[in-house]
Amino acid sequence: MAQKPSIPKGTRDFSPIEVAKRNYIFNTIRAHFERFGYQPIETPTFENSETLMGKYGEEGDRLIFKILNSGNYFFNKQKIELPRSIESLQVNSAETISVEELVQLNQFTNKISEKALRYDLTVPFARYVVQHQNEIEFPFKRYQIQPVWRADRPQKGRFREFYQCDADVVGSTSLWQEVELVQLYDSVFFDLGLKGVTIKINNRKILSGIAEVIGASDKLIDFTVALDKLDKIGEDGVKKEMLEKGISEEAIVKVQPLFNFTGTTAEKLEKLSQLLAGSQEGLKGVEELRFICENVLEIGLKDSKLDLDVTLARGLNYYTGAIFEVSAPEGVSMGSIGGGGRYDDLTGIFGLKNMSGVGISFGLDRIYLVVEELGLFPETVTSTSKAIFLNFGESEAKYAMKAISKLRAAGIKVEMYPDNAKIGKQFQYADKRGISYAIIVGGEELKNNVYNLKNLASGEQQTLDFESLQNILQ
Amino acid sequence: MAQKPSIPKGTRDFSPIEVAKRNYIFNTIRAHFERFGYQPIETPTFENSETLMGKYGEEGDRLIFKILNSGNYFFNKQKIELPRSIESLQVNSAETISVEELVQLNQFTNKISEKALRYDLTVPFARYVVQHQNEIEFPFKRYQIQPVWRADRPQKGRFREFYQCDADVVGSTSLWQEVELVQLYDSVFFDLGLKGVTIKINNRKILSGIAEVIGASDKLIDFTVALDKLDKIGEDGVKKEMLEKGISEEAIVKVQPLFNFTGTTAEKLEKLSQLLAGSQEGLKGVEELRFICENVLEIGLKDSKLDLDVTLARGLNYYTGAIFEVSAPEGVSMGSIGGGGRYDDLTGIFGLKNMSGVGISFGLDRIYLVVEELGLFPETVTSTSKAIFLNFGESEAKYAMKAISKLRAAGIKVEMYPDNAKIGKQFQYADKRGISYAIIVGGEELKNNVYNLKNLASGEQQTLDFESLQNILQ
Repeated sequence: MAQKPSIPKGTRDFSPIEVAKRNYIFNTIRAHFERFGYQPIETPTFENSETLMGKYGEEGDRLIFKILNSGNYFFNKQKIELPRSIESLQVNSAETISVEELVQLNQFTNKISEKALRYDLTVPFARYVVQHQNEIEFPFKRYQIQPVWRADRPQKGRFREFYQCDADVVGSTSLWQEVELVQLYDSVFFDLGLKGVTIKINNRKILSGIAEVIGASDKLIDFTVALDKLDKIGEDGVKKEMLEKGISEEAIVKVQPLFNFTGTTAEKLEKLSQLLAGSQEGLKGVEELRFICENVLEIGLKDSKLDLDVTLARGLNYYTGAIFEVSAPEGVSMGSIGGGGRYDDLTGIFGLKNMSGVGISFGLDRIYLVVEELGLFPETVTSTSKAIFLNFGESEAKYAMKAISKLRAAGIKVEMYPDNAKIGKQFQYADKRGISYAIIVGGEELKNNVYNLKNLASGEQQTLDFESLQNILQ
Repeated sequence: MAQKPSIPKGTRDFSPIEVAKRNYIFNTIRAHFERFGYQPIETPTFENSETLMGKYGEEGDRLIFKILNSGNYFFNKQKIELPRSIESLQVNSAETISVEELVQLNQFTNKISEKALRYDLTVPFARYVVQHQNEIEFPFKRYQIQPVWRADRPQKGRFREFYQCDADVVGSTSLWQEVELVQLYDSVFFDLGLKGVTIKINNRKILSGIAEVIGASDKLIDFTVALDKLDKIGEDGVKKEMLEKGISEEAIVKVQPLFNFTGTTAEKLEKLSQLLAGSQEGLKGVEELRFICENVLEIGLKDSKLDLDVTLARGLNYYTGAIFEVSAPEGVSMGSIGGGGRYDDLTGIFGLKNMSGVGISFGLDRIYLVVEELGLFPETVTSTSKAIFLNFGESEAKYAMKAISKLRAAGIKVEMYPDNAKIGKQFQYADKRGISYAIIVGGEELKNNVYNLKNLASGEQQTLDFESLQNILQ
């Protein structure tokens, strides 16, 4: 093999320092998940295709990685009819494929593939809850930190394999959950040192209320998309776009307060309750938002800002109550670093009705980039050894290994250079590995039962007995 | 969907307590890996098929899970010729498939699948080392704890998705690595409380030497397999089997000492050096074993027993030096709970020559079963909350949430029952979740700014101010 081996596009290798930094973020998130009473579960990397297909829309189905049936898929005791049209098919990217051919293709794919890689953590969680409903105490607060896979076109910051960190509660409609999830975001980002994070909150019922008010629920997405551009194209620009999208002038007049939607949370809630006076659902949304915002503000956040944002509409077809999204601190150009919301019927797709769920997700890769950009990884985040014993030959090595054995038993990360190489090479190795101390045990040290400890940053050297050595390294 | 959803055979869901127990083992292994100077890497879940195929033998190739090319695999601007013979193929498990058909089938599979799930951690590690050789300081001590996938027939204790925990050094031939790997096994199992573990050691060169001595290297596997049955079928039975396998009587006489291969390690080494006097390679193996065993014994193990076992031959075609295998404590019926060895040419398959590697692996699932069977999981291994505030209504809940917010900031795992449900139901929930304390704040407590703490095991109750509450829970 002349060529260097490579990995599939959209995937990554992680070096020791990258693993250490990622684990620092994972461990912080995990610690807070557990403090907040969430419990870990893990689900298999692949699910039965029928568990995943049809749950993420047509686009999602296309992005699911499918696994070929193992062994020989012709040994299934069934005849596999390959679509004749496909056999002779030669499609350039410019050409199209007929619907009939696509149907045949899908049928064929289903025959040779019955499993698929996890696409997110929510559908497997719903499947888990239904499958294990008799073993679970509800409300069930679970967290899950596992990779997911999407056959998206890879680009900067978008990968085909990436981790999701989700916390969800299922089986309770209490709005205290939403209050807690805002606190959870605040706690994690505070601990990571990410100051100035904004937690945006909205409610699907507010959006439905607006639809009612503008008299056209089918225009809601156009409406929110346009309104979201207020910062960029100004009020006139937004109104122009709305008219172009077929929203009536009358409707636009009705929701005029949204064009100047500023003020304190209390003021915003007041504006909304006036605007949505004619919509029962809208008013319910206002009450839910009021409960969440008032309690969050009264109990207090450590650092994050809570921002009621009526344009927030992520997963519009999915969420039924609260909607969350977290923006990175101002000045860092990065999309959302987290999001979530409430879905009244989490497990209905698997036959268990009336299970309300609410949850949030942390975007590990983007959080990593933000923490890196702001220089917030602690210097102690490393997996490397504290000290390395240099190797001066067999009897010195044996003397070193006896000390190492005792130091490790005391929990100290320490190693010996395995070969009796030139000392310059050994020092260079220690330096490149980022190890703080070299320990030199030559004939003299061995004779006197001592250790020569060299601080590789300062160059300072001292001769120590074992106890003093252990104390310094501990 | 009327039927309860399920997961693919050979895969598992892990409940909160199972995740906590598994993490206890992972964390123990990881802590010792790092103490011994090993550094973590992670590689992608799927590799390019060409990276994996052909590395595990024919049987291995068959057990590799292949991933369908994403999107529409007919959009590759190439014509895919489906084998006509397969189109009309109808194979029952009883029928056979012709070689020609199989070739066509493989060609077809390769066209629709270019990626495959990781089958072990060693081949991806070799690929990683070659790909990143310019960024790595050698010798490179890496550890890796990730799942692997095999399309094996699932059975008790054998899964299609399972974790491997590997530590390997690449780029050094120093036998101190072998010494250290024995100590690493000993340290991990000692910390897990697994007393009486046996670390078996052998050397491929000893086996080659025996082959030389019996004058038939092609009979070596038959020879070791037969010898391994000494306990069960006795010396006569073993000799009978050897003769049946075509090993000459003369050869059997030569290796007579192996039939009574007992005594101290020093005695065993002495027997071997006499037996293998005629084999240069065999004597080299004896010297390697002598260095490893003598140093291990001189520096000392915490609890495990080191056992020189000449019948140990795992991965015969793979290892070139030391061979390791760990047996569970006596009395626990379980196969090996770990294994490893040295391979002189780890990265040659990817074009980087002369890179010796040595490593060991921990079998997570089996270790889990042993720790469970012996009741060695500490009682503190749980992810559940320390205390739960019961919910008596909105103002009490708000009072509780304020306290919870402060307790969590102090790192205490605590939660509130989200709904104002019947108190019996709330207590039952706390009990089933295994939570130690319930905290009751009704109108009286709220008025007096105190908390009523109930120990759910003893039933004991006490009224406390916030500070005392925090002190008890901490």
